[in-house]
Amino acid sequence: METKPLVRKLGALVALTDVELRVLDALHKRRRTFATGRDLVHQGRADQATYILVSGWAVAYKILEDGQRQIIDFLIPGDFIGLRGMVSHLSDHSVEPVTDIEVTEVLVADFMTALADTPRMAIAVFWATSRDEAMVVEHLINIGRRDAAVRVAHFLLELGARLALVGLGSKAGYACPLTQYLLADALGLSSVHVNRVLRQLRDKGMVTFRDGFVTFDDYGRLTEFAGFDPEYLDQIGPLLK
Amino acid sequence: METKPLVRKLGALVALTDVELRVLDALHKRRRTFATGRDLVHQGRADQATYILVSGWAVAYKILEDGQRQIIDFLIPGDFIGLRGMVSHLSDHSVEPVTDIEVTEVLVADFMTALADTPRMAIAVFWATSRDEAMVVEHLINIGRRDAAVRVAHFLLELGARLALVGLGSKAGYACPLTQYLLADALGLSSVHVNRVLRQLRDKGMVTFRDGFVTFDDYGRLTEFAGFDPEYLDQIGPLLK
Repeated sequence: METKPLVRKLGALVALTDVELRVLDALHKRRRTFATGRDLVHQGRADQATYILVSGWAVAYKILEDGQRQIIDFLIPGDFIGLRGMVSHLSDHSVEPVTDIEVTEVLVADFMTALADTPRMAIAVFWATSRDEAMVVEHLINIGRRDAAVRVAHFLLELGARLALVGLGSKAGYACPLTQYLLADALGLSSVHVNRVLRQLRDKGMVTFRDGFVTFDDYGRLTEFAGFDPEYLDQIGPLLK
Repeated sequence: METKPLVRKLGALVALTDVELRVLDALHKRRRTFATGRDLVHQGRADQATYILVSGWAVAYKILEDGQRQIIDFLIPGDFIGLRGMVSHLSDHSVEPVTDIEVTEVLVADFMTALADTPRMAIAVFWATSRDEAMVVEHLINIGRRDAAVRVAHFLLELGARLALVGLGSKAGYACPLTQYLLADALGLSSVHVNRVLRQLRDKGMVTFRDGFVTFDDYGRLTEFAGFDPEYLDQIGPLLK
């Protein structure tokens, strides 16, 4: 059995048993692919499917009344897509692939049965969604309180920590398909501003984002500069060994 | 059995059975009270308790590296306090009572057993936490994209919808103990600015916030002005009747 990103992610909290691994595996049956730019979750529509992202990157966003777009988060392998839609009538946001992506469609009934059958895994899923909320809180603080350079640094570090958890990054860096436009939209900055800040961070020898790669030139100093405390991404759960 | 706010809230999604009502009731055994200004959850501390807010208001906030405070959300009866702390090592935020409050302390072991024993209720709890995340997303958008007047209007409407769900508000209005300072801190505005915006909204005949009461003078017009779509607070669950 290949190690799927969601298995790695939940496995960081819970020492998954064979039964739980089989249940997780059974959720990964309905593979689908979506091409860049083709929304797979649609804001305002009912009965949206829920997916687990297996490979590639996506972006969750919301279109406001006046047509402006606010990016809520980027989604990486191991993340749920449209999970909130499972428990509400209409989706309150859209999701678009940033790269071509591979997903597994999860049927509500299957998912509910899986959670009911494996309470420990249910808690791990709950932890994963709590972590998503903690990230949105950090983004709120990013936009509300941090200056542009700290904002960009914090964001790149957060992505790195998330990717490391699913084996796609390290303190050296990670492959990152995001454009400066997407970064700008997520951080409430102009892309010109993002460009200037990235140049500053590179000139200071802290981080380089170039040609689809984020390289942490000095992880320790960048962490200190950003006031980045990965506690809110904490993958060490005290509950379930 | 009195109708507790959390029971009303979860009951809006799930038609709770007698068994589930008893399990919920059993969670409400350890009553405690906290006075205004005395933190009951502490950012950065381990092994924080989890509570259900029974009466009164509280504020969840985070202190940044530079000492600034960002309010994440206000908590009203029926809300969980410190639920994320249950699945992470250290609390990533603090919670302080805005008024004297009454809470029920929930022991982790009791809560986990309750969820494992009543999968439908577990889904309702999951829905409640998803809704919390949806609210933080709205606050992100509020700060990132909406102008001051729309921001204040949207916030007052959201509070009204949340309070209505637990029987503490209606489209006429609600009792609200928040100061203009707290409102300002939550919305990323100065209190002088909040004061000016509240006067504008009142002069336009849309909403009046005075002497601890929010009165919706014209709920329909305020909703339109704010672009408020209560969909993200949707309490009508398709899953569980």
